[in-house]
Amino acid sequence: MLRFRCIQLFTSPFEAPFIQSFKPHTSISCAQMGSYSTTSSSSQNSPKLVFRQLFEKESSTYTYLLADTSHPQKPALLIDPVDKTVDRDLALVKELGLKLIYAINTHVHADHVTGSGLIKTKFPGVKSIISKASNAKADLFVEPGDKIYFGDIFLEVRATPGHTLGCVTYVTGDGPNQPQPRMAFTGDALLIRGCGRTDFQIFTLPKDTLLYPAHDYKGFTVSTVGEEVLYNPRLSKDKEIFKNIMQNLNLSYPKMMDVAVPANMVCGLQETKSEAC
Amino acid sequence: MLRFRCIQLFTSPFEAPFIQSFKPHTSISCAQMGSYSTTSSSSQNSPKLVFRQLFEKESSTYTYLLADTSHPQKPALLIDPVDKTVDRDLALVKELGLKLIYAINTHVHADHVTGSGLIKTKFPGVKSIISKASNAKADLFVEPGDKIYFGDIFLEVRATPGHTLGCVTYVTGDGPNQPQPRMAFTGDALLIRGCGRTDFQIFTLPKDTLLYPAHDYKGFTVSTVGEEVLYNPRLSKDKEIFKNIMQNLNLSYPKMMDVAVPANMVCGLQETKSEAC
Repeated sequence: MLRFRCIQLFTSPFEAPFIQSFKPHTSISCAQMGSYSTTSSSSQNSPKLVFRQLFEKESSTYTYLLADTSHPQKPALLIDPVDKTVDRDLALVKELGLKLIYAINTHVHADHVTGSGLIKTKFPGVKSIISKASNAKADLFVEPGDKIYFGDIFLEVRATPGHTLGCVTYVTGDGPNQPQPRMAFTGDALLIRGCGRTDFQIFTLPKDTLLYPAHDYKGFTVSTVGEEVLYNPRLSKDKEIFKNIMQNLNLSYPKMMDVAVPANMVCGLQETKSEAC
Repeated sequence: MLRFRCIQLFTSPFEAPFIQSFKPHTSISCAQMGSYSTTSSSSQNSPKLVFRQLFEKESSTYTYLLADTSHPQKPALLIDPVDKTVDRDLALVKELGLKLIYAINTHVHADHVTGSGLIKTKFPGVKSIISKASNAKADLFVEPGDKIYFGDIFLEVRATPGHTLGCVTYVTGDGPNQPQPRMAFTGDALLIRGCGRTDFQIFTLPKDTLLYPAHDYKGFTVSTVGEEVLYNPRLSKDKEIFKNIMQNLNLSYPKMMDVAVPANMVCGLQETKSEAC
């Protein structure tokens, strides 16, 4: 669904970046089990994705930087920035000559404070994005089916509730000038060989789709749909076994929960003066 | 230089993988500052690189898995495996359906014990590789200019002494069917925004060459030649300033040094019964 309210808030100088509706792509290809990422293009006019995966040790969180460097203004976005590593991330954005336009969260995190609020204090032009279903505050809200453009590249929004009700997965677009294989930023909904009951949405993507989660605790950096279908120790089980596994994890109370969730519900700023943050 | 001794030791069932000589490639292209990695190919007959970056938290070490999945036997190699994460790495090799043929080190590590010895106890067919200049033990020794083939993809060996005398950088090949942009596995010779005085070799590579170091302490996962030329705080300085910086780092004695170096001089096995390990 087209989010007109979001577009009215939008103040980017670019023509291309915007959020629009799309028909979800649900076909499954038999692409080979995936290689690591991709995206250099031989054509001068085709988009060229710059992609960086960044790690925050304390919460084992991955932040992802994506930009279209074929666009004159090199528009960029950050997925799941962490407050403690905002300076590192913004320095990299500057060094690469990019213009950051969006700070995007996959969901309301409970283990770290999002960097999106801090980013906005340093770069007020940056718009924060989160799903409408999260009930958190942000500049722009997305719903399943929306597209988020940066230059000529876009992310599709897929609903992947389970970890939280408002969890979404951002997937690079399906089209002739979009990165191949596709890349899915799964947040906490699907971890490498870990979970979240979200296979219905994520597992409809092509098998070679590269899976980029919000965390990893074992040192992995990427997986594919094909691998997780086969080897994910939770999602490869049936519903009853899955429920039993999840009910008996006996996890301790997240140490950052009481700080992180209230802060992340307002995009990383505990005290905000306006609705948007 | 062709290492005949190495080839005589070689017992792999593959026709293609071997170490051979090559003329170093020193041309510099003006390719755009690099995107993350690459390598899916649309041709059935072209090599397809599967690439994974793996992290060991205690020593902040990166291990790299590379494989040619277009080759019927999917030959694979590991660069800088760590003993503590061998089980993780070998499980991934198995899950991806790869056949591990080489365990390669960029140099004799002082901060962790290489996994190459442990890998060989589990998979005796795997050959360990290190530079001849390292004076360490291994099955195969490489020198600058050598090529290491796995399937139809190869790594070139470049001498990058500085961190240790025997440090080498492994670079994906230059050719029509090789991954683009090229990828350089720099060991400790060049870290992201850090150093080793090795710019003479590494900085002759195309600017979009992806730099994959052996460590990162700030959460970065990849850089490019173009970025490090501009933003590396040590290597962007002249020789005298560089020497001054390095002489005044006041680093503490590496805690693993007395364990790691002796173990790594024999490829990760403190007690070996034969020359090769």
